[in-house]
Amino acid sequence: MTRVRIDLFVSLDGYTSMTDNTPNNPMGEDWGRLTAAYTATRTFRERVLGNTSGTGTTGLDDSYAAASFENIGAEIMGASMFGLHAFPDDPDWKGWWGDQPPFGTPVYVLTHTAPRPSIQMQGGTTFHFRNAEIEDVLAEATEAANGLDVRVGGGVSTARDFLRAGLVDEFHLMVAPVLLGRGTRLWDDLPALDLTHKMTTELADSGTSHVTFTR
Amino acid sequence: MTRVRIDLFVSLDGYTSMTDNTPNNPMGEDWGRLTAAYTATRTFRERVLGNTSGTGTTGLDDSYAAASFENIGAEIMGASMFGLHAFPDDPDWKGWWGDQPPFGTPVYVLTHTAPRPSIQMQGGTTFHFRNAEIEDVLAEATEAANGLDVRVGGGVSTARDFLRAGLVDEFHLMVAPVLLGRGTRLWDDLPALDLTHKMTTELADSGTSHVTFTR
Repeated sequence: MTRVRIDLFVSLDGYTSMTDNTPNNPMGEDWGRLTAAYTATRTFRERVLGNTSGTGTTGLDDSYAAASFENIGAEIMGASMFGLHAFPDDPDWKGWWGDQPPFGTPVYVLTHTAPRPSIQMQGGTTFHFRNAEIEDVLAEATEAANGLDVRVGGGVSTARDFLRAGLVDEFHLMVAPVLLGRGTRLWDDLPALDLTHKMTTELADSGTSHVTFTR
Repeated sequence: MTRVRIDLFVSLDGYTSMTDNTPNNPMGEDWGRLTAAYTATRTFRERVLGNTSGTGTTGLDDSYAAASFENIGAEIMGASMFGLHAFPDDPDWKGWWGDQPPFGTPVYVLTHTAPRPSIQMQGGTTFHFRNAEIEDVLAEATEAANGLDVRVGGGVSTARDFLRAGLVDEFHLMVAPVLLGRGTRLWDDLPALDLTHKMTTELADSGTSHVTFTR
């Protein structure tokens, strides 16, 4: 049965994302600190950077990183994560990930702008653009996943929309051992997931706490 | 050399304390969920409840609980923690802890109300009431500690005052695996302790993360 999954980063003080990004530094300064343990993993280097030299950490952070790619049949992401807000006037924008994105599945991009034609990339990724309710996009992604899981890839506001709507079966949170002091608050207005989901915590050598809410 | 130490509880979503307390339930409902792992320890049962039957957990939560009582020569707490706000008109109020409080040291209670005479309790605890700057009270407590450490016992607003003033050498945070969704935000306006202190994390079987900032 298809399960809806989310992986997110949060700082110890509860911030999820950068508000310090600029045109010259689209991810901002904080993003690197928040994701350091993840981007150090072998899985990230292989799957996202395409670096097959075998470098990168192989501990608990890597196990979770690898698991996040397993059994995924479709992906949903917000317009901002795809880059539509950064490049609104470029009809040929194909995302941040080069010719062969790391997804390898249909990817449904939520957007309020004019419809775009789907884009087929190398490696099995096809980007579809949908201006629709998240429940309807999820239904389409679930059908496309054909029994595999649907991952809501981000960004944070899209993930929070799915969490608030009670649509998420597995929420994996990487609590980074840093204090950002700024950003988007992850927890504001979220439902009490600890009452509806089983909660487990594992601690990686990096100091990252992997908190998983499962139902 | 005297070190200034704080132990605090915080929920995974960053709340430190109850805002749901009522006259009939002075600690509120959330406090029990936040402190469950601590109040289950053998140390809490012995030191705070006076239960010497040897019940209670003995794992990592208990090790931290025991350490929080070690090497303390003086304590500082806010008026609210002592109970002056709950019982402002009772000149004979002696705190929540019965005739033999668990401190066993001088305890300096910060208050803006009229001065009260010191109260000597059984077991080595003496309550002193001070209407003064926290730096001055800390200086007095440090002298009384005579080379041992000074613990800032709480409540949260007093602890935050000391943290904001950069006065804390060791900050032990118990991150409880619960989402409160309400309360006082621990992190608002705190300095970036991860840049000034060394940060370590240990995970207890209870799911509590023990995060320690040390300088």
